[in-house]
Amino acid sequence: MLIAYCLLLIANCLLSIAYSYIYSMRHILPIILFVPFLAHTQVPSDSTALYIKNIYRNSYTEQKAYKWLTTLTKDIGHRVSGSPQAARAVEWAKQVMDTCGFDKVWLQEVKVPHWVRGDNEQVIMISTESGAVSLNALALGNSPGTGNSGVRAQVIEVKSLEQLKSMPDDDVKGKIVFFNRPMDSGLMNTFAAYGGAGDQRGNGPVVAAEKGAVAAVVRSLCPRLDDFPHTGATHLSETVKNIPSVAVSTNDAEQLSKSISLGPTTVFIRTTCEMLDSVLSYNVIGEIKGSVSPDTIILVGGHLDSWDIGEGAHDDGAGVVQSMEALYRLVQNGYKPRHTIRCVLFMNEENGLRGGKKYAEEAIKNNQFHLVAIETDAGGATPQAFGCTMGADSLVDQHITYMKTYMKALEPYYVRIESGGGGADISALKPKTGLLIGLRPDSSRYFDYHHSANDVLENVHPHELESGAAAITSFIYLVDQNGIGK
Amino acid sequence: MLIAYCLLLIANCLLSIAYSYIYSMRHILPIILFVPFLAHTQVPSDSTALYIKNIYRNSYTEQKAYKWLTTLTKDIGHRVSGSPQAARAVEWAKQVMDTCGFDKVWLQEVKVPHWVRGDNEQVIMISTESGAVSLNALALGNSPGTGNSGVRAQVIEVKSLEQLKSMPDDDVKGKIVFFNRPMDSGLMNTFAAYGGAGDQRGNGPVVAAEKGAVAAVVRSLCPRLDDFPHTGATHLSETVKNIPSVAVSTNDAEQLSKSISLGPTTVFIRTTCEMLDSVLSYNVIGEIKGSVSPDTIILVGGHLDSWDIGEGAHDDGAGVVQSMEALYRLVQNGYKPRHTIRCVLFMNEENGLRGGKKYAEEAIKNNQFHLVAIETDAGGATPQAFGCTMGADSLVDQHITYMKTYMKALEPYYVRIESGGGGADISALKPKTGLLIGLRPDSSRYFDYHHSANDVLENVHPHELESGAAAITSFIYLVDQNGIGK
Repeated sequence: MLIAYCLLLIANCLLSIAYSYIYSMRHILPIILFVPFLAHTQVPSDSTALYIKNIYRNSYTEQKAYKWLTTLTKDIGHRVSGSPQAARAVEWAKQVMDTCGFDKVWLQEVKVPHWVRGDNEQVIMISTESGAVSLNALALGNSPGTGNSGVRAQVIEVKSLEQLKSMPDDDVKGKIVFFNRPMDSGLMNTFAAYGGAGDQRGNGPVVAAEKGAVAAVVRSLCPRLDDFPHTGATHLSETVKNIPSVAVSTNDAEQLSKSISLGPTTVFIRTTCEMLDSVLSYNVIGEIKGSVSPDTIILVGGHLDSWDIGEGAHDDGAGVVQSMEALYRLVQNGYKPRHTIRCVLFMNEENGLRGGKKYAEEAIKNNQFHLVAIETDAGGATPQAFGCTMGADSLVDQHITYMKTYMKALEPYYVRIESGGGGADISALKPKTGLLIGLRPDSSRYFDYHHSANDVLENVHPHELESGAAAITSFIYLVDQNGIGK
Repeated sequence: MLIAYCLLLIANCLLSIAYSYIYSMRHILPIILFVPFLAHTQVPSDSTALYIKNIYRNSYTEQKAYKWLTTLTKDIGHRVSGSPQAARAVEWAKQVMDTCGFDKVWLQEVKVPHWVRGDNEQVIMISTESGAVSLNALALGNSPGTGNSGVRAQVIEVKSLEQLKSMPDDDVKGKIVFFNRPMDSGLMNTFAAYGGAGDQRGNGPVVAAEKGAVAAVVRSLCPRLDDFPHTGATHLSETVKNIPSVAVSTNDAEQLSKSISLGPTTVFIRTTCEMLDSVLSYNVIGEIKGSVSPDTIILVGGHLDSWDIGEGAHDDGAGVVQSMEALYRLVQNGYKPRHTIRCVLFMNEENGLRGGKKYAEEAIKNNQFHLVAIETDAGGATPQAFGCTMGADSLVDQHITYMKTYMKALEPYYVRIESGGGGADISALKPKTGLLIGLRPDSSRYFDYHHSANDVLENVHPHELESGAAAITSFIYLVDQNGIGK
């Protein structure tokens, strides 16, 4: 015991001497020497601290991201892939970037699916006990419609895909399947809760179709009890005929479940949604050319499309305007980046991921290496971390250890770096990227709004949104200056 | 350079050996040996991590704090000191605590000031340019009223107390002084912005009175431009006659400023607020007796009074119910604390601090030592840190270094320990407390609501509120188990 204690004392002594010396020589030291020894001690220089302080100050006072979000949500509104609003959003984003002083702004062609909701949706619950009750519902994205005449059948409730799969086909055939497992309300991270319930919306309708059901009803992926239905993509089967599927609000899921527990309940569904022909759309890209390593890219992006209700304010208007502000702010600062910094507004994240795939395909074809790809698609709340997952090499932990040395500079803003994260649009870029990184905001309120009529500007707070924009700008600056280690 | 690098290598080698040995012996080591060397390496045990995970899970799923807050805000409402609602809040809190299985619940007598707003307040701006325009205004707490006939005078605008002090008395005499320095919108921490503008409300009216002004108008301490006036305490002078003072909304402050810039502007103020005789009220206290050191107390508290508008939901209903839930949750877990854990709901934080002073006076008289005193009075948003300031000894940095060893357990919840913080109600306890600690939630939205009709339950999010309750409960558990170092 005493030996260990003495070793500690000696080691600390040596560390202190070595650190003092190295710190005094820091400007002429190759940065690699600091890794991983200084991870817990390095303090950002005064000039770095001041640079970042000003990024935050200017973001808060100018509120560029919030002003852009106001236009995107209030003048353009929701913008599902293939819609006229999505086309307007492309045009708007390019026009704005054209005025920002970037070195280059361009559109990248992407063919996107064009799903339309159709007119007046109806979901009616009918039972002896309750009579006929209209439920708050929305067709799921990609779902086929019932057509004008609708579909009516007895409804059976299940809590999981496994439960449904284990049922005899005859018990399901001709019925409507109701998936009613709530999101786990006991988790701090509501994305984890979303992940734990999401298979019902994503794959439930296909499994129900395989068992012979005529339609599917899914409890909205919302952690609260309220009256807002939440839509979102459902996968389509290539082997069985896809069935109409809808989401009902959490309050109405409770109501439907109660009715089923009291006696046989039928549901009538009328939806006229349909998948039209694909449409030519675009990713919108802007960049500032690097002065030292112009062929190495630091990418930041969000997605320009949204669902076809609400205003797509958190999902992902927030990510769009934060990404734009990051480049704007660096240009405003007169910053000359070492690497090329690129803002990519992806099209069609919600129901196809065509924009992300197209961007990656081109980047791989043209051998464009991305030092990091940062995605902001988790809402406009106060950021807590940048979450990292493996890119082209398998050194994610080493990269994080190294980056922690300079991420001290974001400690005053309660933002850290950690493992886990990334994002859907950047995932295909993995072979040409050092690290895939996702901004992680506080998730407490996100799924109250997500994919619902509630995802509007009024539920985005300017200070929180700008905290995210400033964190991203600062992070890009730090990565550009310091790299990610090797 | 090479020497330093070699020293680093040797030191790290020695550290690794020493740490491995110490870690394997950790159960028989006196904890003091770990300080400060392991601050960056110790990992919470699986059982600690699980214990905390369950605290969070149970807080989120049961939402006890949020349910209590619903009663406090919707059934009782706002509760300024001395009011019937404040009396009802005392009664309610005691009744609730009586059902929670605490070892002891009692009331501590406190004489509190009883300020009343009176009827229909009027603030009217009059100028040639604008005619007569009614402004959104609230009398400041403690302020004398104008009486029914009101006061009307020309208004002069100042940006600071210093500016006012430097003006010739004749320029101020008989006028109404308008303090119009906005909160600094460039800071992440809105409490710092509040602190930077707060002297106008706190001391502005007295300075204006000293210069011969007949009334004071203060720009609301709100970072946004909106129509809600925000009240709050103003200090009273014991040497000059205090003058009526009101806060106007930020939008109306802009309007008034514009009018003044265009030409002579008068303001008419009518308020009938007044200070009545002091009233007997109470701090409400509950405790769980310690099993090892019952004479050493871990205190957690918030304040039961609020301003007389809105519902006092964030300020400080949130702190009240979080403090109650912390003890409730530990009792529910069957936890037998080492130290006595005490929840104190202070009366009269807003305009007198009589409850905090009375509690400290008794504690000092009875020689009751508090290991830590934790105050939660910064709103119900997602917590980011526990901020510590010096208590009875001067070892705050050493305490923090030590506590960081076990605060690793709160890393998954994005809560850390740092210096700075504390709270108004616990400040007088300093001579009998190891560390004064304040919960620091995300401050982005707090001052949108603070002291206004906007501080209502609807602006508190249950998940965020419960994150705070769970963080406090977990922190108390960790401090009780591990102490604060010596």
